Amino acid sequence: MTDFFKVKSLDEVLGMAQLFAPVGLEQLHIHDAFSRVLAKDLVAGEDLPGFRRSCMDGYAVNAPSTFGASESGPAWLTLKGSIAMGDIPDFELAPGEVARIATGGMLPKGADAVVMVEHTEAVDEQSIEVYKSVAPLQHVIDVTEDFPKGRTVIEKGRLMRPQEIGLAAGLGHTKIQAYQVPKVGIISTGDEVIHVEETPAPGKIRDINSYSLSALVTQAGGEPVRYGIVKDDPKALESMCKTALTHTDMVLLSGGSSVGTRDYTVEVLSALPDTQILVHGISLSPGKPTILARSGHTPVWGLPGQVVSAMVVFQVVVTAFLHRLRGLSGPVPKVTASARLSRNIASSQGRRDVVRVVLEKDGRDLAARPILGKSGLIRTMVQADGLLEIGEHVEGLEKGSMVDIILLN
Amino acid sequence: MTDFFKVKSLDEVLGMAQLFAPVGLEQLHIHDAFSRVLAKDLVAGEDLPGFRRSCMDGYAVNAPSTFGASESGPAWLTLKGSIAMGDIPDFELAPGEVARIATGGMLPKGADAVVMVEHTEAVDEQSIEVYKSVAPLQHVIDVTEDFPKGRTVIEKGRLMRPQEIGLAAGLGHTKIQAYQVPKVGIISTGDEVIHVEETPAPGKIRDINSYSLSALVTQAGGEPVRYGIVKDDPKALESMCKTALTHTDMVLLSGGSSVGTRDYTVEVLSALPDTQILVHGISLSPGKPTILARSGHTPVWGLPGQVVSAMVVFQVVVTAFLHRLRGLSGPVPKVTASARLSRNIASSQGRRDVVRVVLEKDGRDLAARPILGKSGLIRTMVQADGLLEIGEHVEGLEKGSMVDIILLN
Repeated sequence: MTDFFKVKSLDEVLGMAQLFAPVGLEQLHIHDAFSRVLAKDLVAGEDLPGFRRSCMDGYAVNAPSTFGASESGPAWLTLKGSIAMGDIPDFELAPGEVARIATGGMLPKGADAVVMVEHTEAVDEQSIEVYKSVAPLQHVIDVTEDFPKGRTVIEKGRLMRPQEIGLAAGLGHTKIQAYQVPKVGIISTGDEVIHVEETPAPGKIRDINSYSLSALVTQAGGEPVRYGIVKDDPKALESMCKTALTHTDMVLLSGGSSVGTRDYTVEVLSALPDTQILVHGISLSPGKPTILARSGHTPVWGLPGQVVSAMVVFQVVVTAFLHRLRGLSGPVPKVTASARLSRNIASSQGRRDVVRVVLEKDGRDLAARPILGKSGLIRTMVQADGLLEIGEHVEGLEKGSMVDIILLN
Repeated sequence: MTDFFKVKSLDEVLGMAQLFAPVGLEQLHIHDAFSRVLAKDLVAGEDLPGFRRSCMDGYAVNAPSTFGASESGPAWLTLKGSIAMGDIPDFELAPGEVARIATGGMLPKGADAVVMVEHTEAVDEQSIEVYKSVAPLQHVIDVTEDFPKGRTVIEKGRLMRPQEIGLAAGLGHTKIQAYQVPKVGIISTGDEVIHVEETPAPGKIRDINSYSLSALVTQAGGEPVRYGIVKDDPKALESMCKTALTHTDMVLLSGGSSVGTRDYTVEVLSALPDTQILVHGISLSPGKPTILARSGHTPVWGLPGQVVSAMVVFQVVVTAFLHRLRGLSGPVPKVTASARLSRNIASSQGRRDVVRVVLEKDGRDLAARPILGKSGLIRTMVQADGLLEIGEHVEGLEKGSMVDIILLN
């Protein structure tokens, strides 16, 4: 019996994401860059903000002119002028002089700080009193304080969040190099599966997985490509797999959890050119009968047919591969919440158990209540707010212990 | 002085989301329903799964036929037939009879449980030995176990996550009633703001806010509509506001944090027909100089011009209003992580402080390291993994205390 028939640990399988390479690149306008992954370091082509800028409404000043100023002994300074927003001041400040300035305004030459308007009083049209001293650069953003020219400001492999988009805009990078959105082919298999538009006769069930997996792919930053339903027929499955492999960057088969179909899924995958079965079973519950193959450079998954199992395997395993294809660098943190377990949970050693939970307010804390129910029931995922992973070396978790819940949203 | 000049608490402002109504409805195919909000209860039109279904590979059986079976005293049962996937069995089981069945297969009449194949042995072509008893309904999903016909399965106001999409598919709801995606108009103001394509002269700065706010709107489930930059000119601002109010469901102005411009923003907003200034300052840092008006049925925000302040106010305040417009019912939980504070933080009482933090691994825990830096520096948001809110009645937080971080992703 060859090695691939041994059930693999979750961590072994996750490590295999590195066997695959990120997808190709494209140039994007920053309008369209939200949630995409940067493919080339972004370098500041100029200083940001590029000039000495006020962060307060008040008076630009040479800081030493205010030293020693207090409520009882204010500094008496001369108003030299007023700085319009967006203008280059056409005058300089000498010691003892100030200029009116608004938040975002450019400091004139000779000024290195701003006194807040709250700490001043206009005595007449030419004089103001300052009641508080300021240090050099106080209430000022200096020329290179956000970023100096030449500095790498966003590294390749980083997700473009709203702030990264804003920074690219601020530096005038209207176009960026990004990884393409990986296309993920989705194929449902099984003689019992019918199209969602049809009314199921007894024994038949509508194609849930194509829809839940498509949404999971979208959520994880991929583009789903649905190939519909293939009956339990090796030739048809092989043909559909070849089509999907030609047009997509990753393929998900679901169904075929039963022993017989699983075997022929492996046979069909093995028969594809340049294909290697990498995983044939993961020590994970639900989700044990998961298959992973490499066909050329493309990962092909045989996911369980049970709706909950397919979703859990996607969340816990497949997502990491999709992140790799997207070009994300480093591990992607799962979004978790800390909660207090509301009852004991038993677990098998040597296996990663994934339990669906409801989160409920419990005073200042959250309580995590396990949902009992078979992994064929989509209801249990609809009720669930999150997933609790129980490690391979843990026999179970005790009521009242604090646990990290992977949020489903 | 009228009431609206009093700075309002964050909770008062959040409560005002209820003054606005959700946007209109539309019918959507479930292909397009991910991350949309359901506008009409989804009711099961039939039982799910609708038949008694196996969750294991094994043998369908009448449970009492196995009672008392053990390794040392197996039950000896007669193989009546085999059930093909997706088929209605054309035979019934009598006591003492079994039928081969795969995961997902339909149980024949007379069967109420499934024995796992691992607990059996085929003795000859007609007989199998069963080594473990099963209870009625064991390893079976019953006719209505996911949902019975007539049950509300997803309530109006719920977000369509992958599992809700899957459930809608499973029940044959290919189309759903959903709330439209709210359109959010975005206007940048200020004589110092230039288009991102331009090279800023000293004193000028590129329009960061239009881009970071657009991405935040997308992230929060809205559709951004950018109206570009308006110079500090009340007539031009009024005209642009009117355009935005005609075409969008919420309007965000940013800029005008300086005292003078803020005043004229309020004047411009007040001059619009059927408009009421609801908020003129929030006890929030950064973000105090925030304005909220109601114009007709539309919320109009005057956000601070400082890039970080505008983003923080969006995350902490505006998002709740966008959720309301989207039709989401109930409070929307913020996605948080629990972390240990790496240093003391001082805070002002009577004001909600929002501090940017970096999250770092610290043994099994996360450590939250506050980022120091002015709210005009977008760098501080690019470094940040999350936001820490410090309550109005807290003077500060001590190093080592556990805090909840709102994740930015």
